[in-house]
Amino acid sequence: MSGVFGVSRTKKQDVAKLAYYAAFALQHRGQETCGIAVNDQGVFKTYKDVGLATDVLDKEALRRLGEGQMAIGQNLYGTKIQVNRFNAQPMTINHIKGTLALGMDGAIVNASRLRKELELKGVIFHSVSEAEILSGQLIQARLEASSMEEAVLETMSKLRGAYSFVLMTPQKLIGVRDPYGVRPLCIGKLDDGYVISSESCAVVAVGGEFVRDVRPGEVVVIEDGELTSYTDYCNDKPKALCSFEYIYFARPDSVVEGNGIHETRMNLGKLLAKAHPVDADVVIGVPDSGLNAAMGYATESGIPYGIGFLKNKYIGRSFIAPEMEERELLVRIKLNAISSTVKDKRVIVVDDSIVRGVTSARFIRILREAGAKEIHVRSSAPPFIDECFYGTDIDSPETLISRHHSEEEIAEMIGADSVAFLPVEELIKAVKKPCPGLCDACFTANYPIDPSPAKEPMAKQVLQRLHDGD
Amino acid sequence: MSGVFGVSRTKKQDVAKLAYYAAFALQHRGQETCGIAVNDQGVFKTYKDVGLATDVLDKEALRRLGEGQMAIGQNLYGTKIQVNRFNAQPMTINHIKGTLALGMDGAIVNASRLRKELELKGVIFHSVSEAEILSGQLIQARLEASSMEEAVLETMSKLRGAYSFVLMTPQKLIGVRDPYGVRPLCIGKLDDGYVISSESCAVVAVGGEFVRDVRPGEVVVIEDGELTSYTDYCNDKPKALCSFEYIYFARPDSVVEGNGIHETRMNLGKLLAKAHPVDADVVIGVPDSGLNAAMGYATESGIPYGIGFLKNKYIGRSFIAPEMEERELLVRIKLNAISSTVKDKRVIVVDDSIVRGVTSARFIRILREAGAKEIHVRSSAPPFIDECFYGTDIDSPETLISRHHSEEEIAEMIGADSVAFLPVEELIKAVKKPCPGLCDACFTANYPIDPSPAKEPMAKQVLQRLHDGD
Amino acid sequence: MSGVFGVSRTKKQDVAKLAYYAAFALQHRGQETCGIAVNDQGVFKTYKDVGLATDVLDKEALRRLGEGQMAIGQNLYGTKIQVNRFNAQPMTINHIKGTLALGMDGAIVNASRLRKELELKGVIFHSVSEAEILSGQLIQARLEASSMEEAVLETMSKLRGAYSFVLMTPQKLIGVRDPYGVRPLCIGKLDDGYVISSESCAVVAVGGEFVRDVRPGEVVVIEDGELTSYTDYCNDKPKALCSFEYIYFARPDSVVEGNGIHETRMNLGKLLAKAHPVDADVVIGVPDSGLNAAMGYATESGIPYGIGFLKNKYIGRSFIAPEMEERELLVRIKLNAISSTVKDKRVIVVDDSIVRGVTSARFIRILREAGAKEIHVRSSAPPFIDECFYGTDIDSPETLISRHHSEEEIAEMIGADSVAFLPVEELIKAVKKPCPGLCDACFTANYPIDPSPAKEPMAKQVLQRLHDGD
Amino acid sequence: MSGVFGVSRTKKQDVAKLAYYAAFALQHRGQETCGIAVNDQGVFKTYKDVGLATDVLDKEALRRLGEGQMAIGQNLYGTKIQVNRFNAQPMTINHIKGTLALGMDGAIVNASRLRKELELKGVIFHSVSEAEILSGQLIQARLEASSMEEAVLETMSKLRGAYSFVLMTPQKLIGVRDPYGVRPLCIGKLDDGYVISSESCAVVAVGGEFVRDVRPGEVVVIEDGELTSYTDYCNDKPKALCSFEYIYFARPDSVVEGNGIHETRMNLGKLLAKAHPVDADVVIGVPDSGLNAAMGYATESGIPYGIGFLKNKYIGRSFIAPEMEERELLVRIKLNAISSTVKDKRVIVVDDSIVRGVTSARFIRILREAGAKEIHVRSSAPPFIDECFYGTDIDSPETLISRHHSEEEIAEMIGADSVAFLPVEELIKAVKKPCPGLCDACFTANYPIDPSPAKEPMAKQVLQRLHDGD
Repeated sequence: MSGVFGVSRTKKQDVAKLAYYAAFALQHRGQETCGIAVNDQGVFKTYKDVGLATDVLDKEALRRLGEGQMAIGQNLYGTKIQVNRFNAQPMTINHIKGTLALGMDGAIVNASRLRKELELKGVIFHSVSEAEILSGQLIQARLEASSMEEAVLETMSKLRGAYSFVLMTPQKLIGVRDPYGVRPLCIGKLDDGYVISSESCAVVAVGGEFVRDVRPGEVVVIEDGELTSYTDYCNDKPKALCSFEYIYFARPDSVVEGNGIHETRMNLGKLLAKAHPVDADVVIGVPDSGLNAAMGYATESGIPYGIGFLKNKYIGRSFIAPEMEERELLVRIKLNAISSTVKDKRVIVVDDSIVRGVTSARFIRILREAGAKEIHVRSSAPPFIDECFYGTDIDSPETLISRHHSEEEIAEMIGADSVAFLPVEELIKAVKKPCPGLCDACFTANYPIDPSPAKEPMAKQVLQRLHDGD
Repeated sequence: MSGVFGVSRTKKQDVAKLAYYAAFALQHRGQETCGIAVNDQGVFKTYKDVGLATDVLDKEALRRLGEGQMAIGQNLYGTKIQVNRFNAQPMTINHIKGTLALGMDGAIVNASRLRKELELKGVIFHSVSEAEILSGQLIQARLEASSMEEAVLETMSKLRGAYSFVLMTPQKLIGVRDPYGVRPLCIGKLDDGYVISSESCAVVAVGGEFVRDVRPGEVVVIEDGELTSYTDYCNDKPKALCSFEYIYFARPDSVVEGNGIHETRMNLGKLLAKAHPVDADVVIGVPDSGLNAAMGYATESGIPYGIGFLKNKYIGRSFIAPEMEERELLVRIKLNAISSTVKDKRVIVVDDSIVRGVTSARFIRILREAGAKEIHVRSSAPPFIDECFYGTDIDSPETLISRHHSEEEIAEMIGADSVAFLPVEELIKAVKKPCPGLCDACFTANYPIDPSPAKEPMAKQVLQRLHDGD
Repeated sequence: MSGVFGVSRTKKQDVAKLAYYAAFALQHRGQETCGIAVNDQGVFKTYKDVGLATDVLDKEALRRLGEGQMAIGQNLYGTKIQVNRFNAQPMTINHIKGTLALGMDGAIVNASRLRKELELKGVIFHSVSEAEILSGQLIQARLEASSMEEAVLETMSKLRGAYSFVLMTPQKLIGVRDPYGVRPLCIGKLDDGYVISSESCAVVAVGGEFVRDVRPGEVVVIEDGELTSYTDYCNDKPKALCSFEYIYFARPDSVVEGNGIHETRMNLGKLLAKAHPVDADVVIGVPDSGLNAAMGYATESGIPYGIGFLKNKYIGRSFIAPEMEERELLVRIKLNAISSTVKDKRVIVVDDSIVRGVTSARFIRILREAGAKEIHVRSSAPPFIDECFYGTDIDSPETLISRHHSEEEIAEMIGADSVAFLPVEELIKAVKKPCPGLCDACFTANYPIDPSPAKEPMAKQVLQRLHDGD
Repeated sequence: MSGVFGVSRTKKQDVAKLAYYAAFALQHRGQETCGIAVNDQGVFKTYKDVGLATDVLDKEALRRLGEGQMAIGQNLYGTKIQVNRFNAQPMTINHIKGTLALGMDGAIVNASRLRKELELKGVIFHSVSEAEILSGQLIQARLEASSMEEAVLETMSKLRGAYSFVLMTPQKLIGVRDPYGVRPLCIGKLDDGYVISSESCAVVAVGGEFVRDVRPGEVVVIEDGELTSYTDYCNDKPKALCSFEYIYFARPDSVVEGNGIHETRMNLGKLLAKAHPVDADVVIGVPDSGLNAAMGYATESGIPYGIGFLKNKYIGRSFIAPEMEERELLVRIKLNAISSTVKDKRVIVVDDSIVRGVTSARFIRILREAGAKEIHVRSSAPPFIDECFYGTDIDSPETLISRHHSEEEIAEMIGADSVAFLPVEELIKAVKKPCPGLCDACFTANYPIDPSPAKEPMAKQVLQRLHDGD
């Protein structure tokens, strides 16, 4: 999962600033690297590095990016790759037919194979980024194709995986969403142009008006203020939007496929309350991502909602955590219970998910010390049982607590009075508007897109080798 | 308002790390500068600079601070002074009788006079910090006094103002709270020592056990693991704890004078609901500080509580805000309405206060655009009508919207359907446990401590002159 | 002109440190970027950036590079390319047959053509560096070749230009010098391995023993402590070592093709004295590069040598020079005359060259103000009349003062009593040991290697386009 | 030893830039910290930090300093004090009668006593800088005095030691030189004002005209473009200019007390040749400071002068030196012999001094390896036998090789064929113009100013204690 954004206007102006605002709006989608490429009549300037938008994009960076008609931006979420500036996006590349800049969200399952094919032609790579492999494929296709649109369509026939990307050429801004629609992508309108964004919240942040989602398999091309759509890969087969976008990834104020994220999380909480009711005095959520579902649980159950935790908002990437022996302090520094909410109460704690159970064990301990009488943990995500090959970095399967343990066992392991997960079959009910189907592979091991190439040992080995450069 | 912290243990160990955790726990009290001083058997090491704890205190800083038996830390809130490293605290000073380090919260009303007195003896100052003036007075008193405790008591007879401070000498950790108790200060216990902290949340963050608040006028001295209390300035006269600590400053999970902050803010919301009820569909709070009172309002009124806003948590000090012409974008980048919560609803928005009305006007516009049908603004603070001389940096009196306008006028000015403030006489009711009285000067212009020296033109002039050095 | 260095040892050890020392020893050859790549049993780590060795290579960089059996380093001299980290060398690339790292000195005349050829196969480039084009060619050749040596020899058949490079593969360290021998390259011996270096001074700096120069056209391969030589491109045709290496580039303590640089510069000064004698009281040199020839001039003429200037050694890259109106100050800050040496004297000033005449005019003014009675300027380089296509960044031809002016005219233009240059036919006489012939194209416009591809407008356009990425 | 500079002009302009140029011109006098204070009609701005001018004073620093009528600058040489930003100068202090900024060169022998006196009045210090003690004394005196001049004269009656300082008040620039004239100080003229500088080279660097040296004991005051001189402490007693200024400290192009430094060092070399002749083939100097005397030795002896060493000019403060076991590499990296100059020759090596003999042993080894047949070391300074209390940081007495060893013993210890020092009685002969006498205490232990207070154990202890703050 990452964040992508593109803007195309008819006049030269401060498009870098819009990409900058979008980088803050989409920051939750990727915190490893970020960057912006600006296009002023075919002249591209790119600035990118490791870090948050606030670290990388300072005044000097914006000054150097300058003005233009188009810009794209990307926030990278680190999955299986070494985080360094060479892997940062956008990938800006001068090729024989022009220049392109590319920012991508998702994961291409057959990336290693595609890379090998290109390398056998002598193509050289400077990163382990799938965005560079994708760029290589686009350029390879562009050698024969009569336009970049054609090259994109040709390339899509070879890609297998979950991908939403924005592509900038000297004249065009192109947005692409994979045929399964695993990752979101939407279109917004400015008074003199368009934006393309991973989520609608960035459309709002740049003062645009939300138009619609890009359809699974659709290619949209914006040129001279006009939007053209290519639907060659769109069809009516069942789609597979990542269910974790609704559960955790997307920002609560975004609307994905017509469904407000906050509202959908409230629904998850309501369904959870129906499926796993328990008599209690207060419902609290684990901040920040458990709060919306907690409120849904409270609403459905009629049990009062309370603010149970204070999360320290100043703890960032550079915080120096306690040594092993004092590890218990860490959670106390990050999270503290609000005693008046939980003392002598039977407490329902709603979290968005339980992965290894370690975090749950810690907040349970805090609640116990603050005087909670009973603690019932409810997860708005179903139990994780397998890994994701489409861009989400879940722990390795063997560490997933639900893979080998029942709810009762987990309750005992983490010190809760009870634990319950949303049944996987309830997931889809939380989504009110017709949507392109949900991918629930991490809960069911039913993979909509064959992940086998990504599992080949060769692929791992290549990536390993490539990690060592800087 | 600032944050102070001190720790004294009997054995040499990583006390800097505890001060470091405390700096994160008290970060909300002061974000201009921060620093730590460590004392290892009388050898002091200090590290401090402009910025948040996360900016200033990196691994190298902690390495250089080393280990010791004692440490103090301070987070500075910038009030009327130029923020630079020379004003950063702790102030560590080698004087003829030893070394001291001092970290202070509050404001000394007669600071300029005290400074002038010292300067007439040839004392030189390197900052415009009141902490340096206080240090100068302590050292002056120490020349005659037989101990630092005696010097502290002697100095208190000359100080007028709101102050809580921690003072470290080669052998002792001393905590002092002014006789009116304007700023909070509390004591915590470690297995082999004590901590002193502005708020109880830092006691928890370092793994300590809360003991009690320091009494107004009390001086506590910790030496060799023993705590001694001097109560020369403690008496039963009405006290004046800053009411804004309950309304806004203190962290929700802290307990001040026996009252949980979250609970007290809930109470403020309940009293507000009783005083200013209105028929509506949902109660929302302005994040983060309006949420607790909003929940109280919802509880009391029976109107459902909702999550109405998404606040972008990545916008920090270095965010490059839009130029004037695009200023409206700024609030949209920082705050977005969650449409499903407010659309077609009659909305009560609870904020902690209304100062100039500009922020309120902005979030009202966002709510309108998100489809709110009616917007009723409720402030859990009474109307501001005058300035604070005790360390809170409220805008200059003439910009305070309530100074010259009624609730009806304000509603029209900011675009709300109605506006109402908590009546000032209700404030005290929110505080359940007996507390040392509340200072409500900014709402009533009744100043418990004569602020006249601070108003003298001389003082301003001196400060102005001193701003120009670096 | 740039500096390259490689080391290959039989045991894992701190080879990065040797490359680090070499980066300082060869710093004079390139000050734009620098970098090191370390190879530990096939795992490559690279660190490089814009700046001097002292800026780029700090403790953290060396720690991250770690230990290994081999390392290469490069100091980049910026010619016609934008200086940024993407152009920094070594170029470390993972290709389908392994990994390579490459550091290059010189200029490939047909680089644009080679790049276009590769791009037409879909190869993508991330820089405007000729080293990346060379890498691309090597990888292309390696696809078919059975070894990297074979790929190198195949690639040399396509390269036209002046190049000396070091190439590191998982098993081998390879050193290559172009068939004309335009740039120097030499071999040194360690107790357990070899080093390859642009100049012998780096061999000394790493504690090695100088073995011999690499022959023009030779390829040397070091593997498992054994050195193998491929001489396919070595022949007896006249060679063309850049004469500017002797005049200016190389370090005085280096020995190139058997000729000590200091001694050769002394010889240039002696020949200059014979060719252009003048009656005077003192001979001074313009520091630092004019000092050696000045001493030769003094020795030959019998006129006493004096220290005429003090050069400020603290003025570096970041010095903020005076604004236009105070430009005259700049030279005074950088260079001051030593009055006692020149006052009331007839002074001969020896410089290594006169390009535009601006610098000469400035130091002449300084000498006049210090009381020099007569000033006779002597240049140990012949007059520049045309540009260099082999890696030296001389000003554009039209700005070369000697292209359109006689010695008399120049003397008048710069305010000297007389000006004289070393006659171009004398150059070769300064070089005592048989050497591979000298390239004097910038003095004669006789280009030993056809530079026409570099002059094609296409090439310039491509480079222009590529400048804009970051 | 440090560098000080002051400028006073009648109109507001870019005086910071002049102080900036001076900081580069005087950089050789102090490389630990540097800083500038600008005075714009009584408003002072100061910028200072640890490092060279090139590190500390960047564009942003100059922008923040802004314009003014006056500025002072200082380059600090670290002697016996911890180098940190709190000790950096200028010391800018707001006192009850105004503001002052002070930059000092030298050492005050009774500094600890003066500090103690002030501390007993309650004065607090934030550094271990003698400049802060001096400031404290000036402010103390200013409380009673009717002007700063009067305060300066009053303070001089209490100071014992070697000091030259510049002092800036809202209206005046004041230059002070101690009655013994141990440290140099001179006056220059601008078209609309004056400069005061440690050395004349900075007068030239800012485009000024040298006027004269400040007399020992003189106080010069510049106000409104007029210079006034106070000579209360000037008298005809024997003076004591530090002889090391002529031998090593001052820049070769400076003129101190009428004597050109380069010329004086030539004279030292000539006297050395007369005192200690030896039959040889070439005379070389150890760069950079041995070169001038070497040329004098060559001139006097008639033996040819040669360039014997190449010094790597890129090795700076941040160079990471080899570990212990490879220590021998270090000298080879810094310094390399030029073989053609010394091979098979009898070599005279002139250095400015021999302290512990370690450096000498190293360059001798290098010369031997380069083939030198005989090596005769000559020192243009007499043998060091005792420490300096006036600001020069010579090693502790027991490490001085000449304190316990004869020339013959030293020759054997360092591996030279012979070693000889300039006889101390010859020193004065090198100085042609009448000068205020020379201090030769480090060669004779005859201290012109009683250094006893500096030897008191109390003083050391206080300084030790103060080292620990940051």
